[in-house]
Amino acid sequence: MTREEDAALTEKFKGARILITGGLGFIGSALALRLVAMGSEVALIDNLLADSGANPFNLAPIRDRVTVEIRDMREPGAVAPLVEGRQFLFNLAAQTSHLGSMEDPVTDLDINCRAQLLLLEACRARAPGISIVFASTRQIYGKADYLPVDEKHPLRPPDVNGINKMAGEIYHLLYHQAYGIPVSALRLTNTYGPRMRIKDARQNFLGIWLRRVLEGQPFEVWGGEQIRDFTYIDDVVTAFLLAATVPAAQGRVFNIGAERAVSLAELARLVIEANGGGEFVTKSFPPERKRIDIGDYQADDRLFRDTTGWRPTVPLEAGLVRSMAFFRENLAHYV
Amino acid sequence: MTREEDAALTEKFKGARILITGGLGFIGSALALRLVAMGSEVALIDNLLADSGANPFNLAPIRDRVTVEIRDMREPGAVAPLVEGRQFLFNLAAQTSHLGSMEDPVTDLDINCRAQLLLLEACRARAPGISIVFASTRQIYGKADYLPVDEKHPLRPPDVNGINKMAGEIYHLLYHQAYGIPVSALRLTNTYGPRMRIKDARQNFLGIWLRRVLEGQPFEVWGGEQIRDFTYIDDVVTAFLLAATVPAAQGRVFNIGAERAVSLAELARLVIEANGGGEFVTKSFPPERKRIDIGDYQADDRLFRDTTGWRPTVPLEAGLVRSMAFFRENLAHYV
Repeated sequence: MTREEDAALTEKFKGARILITGGLGFIGSALALRLVAMGSEVALIDNLLADSGANPFNLAPIRDRVTVEIRDMREPGAVAPLVEGRQFLFNLAAQTSHLGSMEDPVTDLDINCRAQLLLLEACRARAPGISIVFASTRQIYGKADYLPVDEKHPLRPPDVNGINKMAGEIYHLLYHQAYGIPVSALRLTNTYGPRMRIKDARQNFLGIWLRRVLEGQPFEVWGGEQIRDFTYIDDVVTAFLLAATVPAAQGRVFNIGAERAVSLAELARLVIEANGGGEFVTKSFPPERKRIDIGDYQADDRLFRDTTGWRPTVPLEAGLVRSMAFFRENLAHYV
Repeated sequence: MTREEDAALTEKFKGARILITGGLGFIGSALALRLVAMGSEVALIDNLLADSGANPFNLAPIRDRVTVEIRDMREPGAVAPLVEGRQFLFNLAAQTSHLGSMEDPVTDLDINCRAQLLLLEACRARAPGISIVFASTRQIYGKADYLPVDEKHPLRPPDVNGINKMAGEIYHLLYHQAYGIPVSALRLTNTYGPRMRIKDARQNFLGIWLRRVLEGQPFEVWGGEQIRDFTYIDDVVTAFLLAATVPAAQGRVFNIGAERAVSLAELARLVIEANGGGEFVTKSFPPERKRIDIGDYQADDRLFRDTTGWRPTVPLEAGLVRSMAFFRENLAHYV
């Protein structure tokens, strides 16, 4: 974004009272860092779920400048006092594991649906003017009928996690329609960058690739022909800020994509390049993953670009170099 | 259905071990009556929720020939022992109030999603071969883009209840795809007949119409131009039995419709006719209902007819006469 656009956004968030759910996670903490830099007054809620992206180190640079509430949104009454008086809510709290949702579907439901309803009810009762951006996911499209996938593509969630995230998204839009709460939802594709979970493949397979290559180990590429798109974290943060403030974005759902899509084999080569060396092993796709895998994906995000002026600014090569640099410096906090 | 078709169905259910959730409700109890007559071994589960269609009198004719478990499916472990050894599961337990789902969305979620996942998990663990028919609803289509509505129509649930019922339906289909559990889902339109809830309009506005006219009071018609279709209970019961036993129905979703659609004004006149007199008052549509109302609806149910040979056999006029006769005789148990 241009310096003027950035200044205009800063003006909107200077002194603004913000709540971020899942605020210790990858995207939540990146939003917090950006908002604190803009002069916002930021409160975060996180339950430090073991399998999530939550990591207290994510907030190291701003630890004394944000309010952190360690609470579980599934508990009745946990969020209600926190939404009061807030102007913006960035709703990132989620269970993201697809296999996990099949093993324990009820926990996935409690986090991705039940806690979402409790949060929306709290907003309706205590902060009906709060502007909400919900982190949705391309996963709810299921296997794509065509590429790139636009927002009109049918929703066919391939697993319990996808069904629950879809319901969570529709709840948000319903609270806009029925109660006029300003809401928009971003269907994210793969987000990557500093502070992502790299301990394992729970958040994204790219995480474990980065870890392995940084530890001097070969990483595994399953298949390799599959097409995916990767959005750098700074661009995703900008998308959230625009979605919260552009009036034409209210009550709507948008895909967030990337500059270009790549095959996993190409991505693997770019990772090696960004690291200045390393190796990977290509394996065939494990059958228990195949059952719920969605195949190729590429977002058509023209609707969001046209509505808000957003566009990705960090090319994949540069984003991988920056990610690697961050994790090389802070590896001990992420493994 | 012909005598031969009926005999073939009876053969399939004779001695079969059945579980019906929501078994004290309108459709659940009608299924139980039919199955007991066919020689099935029927167990029912119901939590006697105050606002539901549950009514112990519904089972009066077969009270000693069925097992009734008064349990709440939301409790962990409540259903698991009941599915064991069962061959068929008719899954009718639901919260059906649209306005109620907006007032208390979390309770709606717990009943229509959370309890459904607990039930499906119990089936996966203890009865993976059980044949399940899930009672879904036309409500999940939202406002129709075209009439009659077929199964390809986009899903746009207009309220929390619709979102949750949609999720419940998709969970069922996922358990078929992922685990091979035989499942089919029926998107019901308005079902009417003996044993429906007529105390108030919670289950269907036709209920309160019947009550008023039987009590010699005028009933209220809101609007009157709206188009709806009404399936007589006996035909709905047959649809469930066919969905459970026709192999080509497995893993699929079907609309269930009626012989024809009528305007509410025409329906009101038919009710008066069936009663041999009475009156109604036409009022304009209340604004708080308008917000979540879906407008005209008529099901295209050719897919189910073609797949199973089902068709509605009871014309609306005859169904209303039978309903009225039942409630006239048993009014004290339903008001």
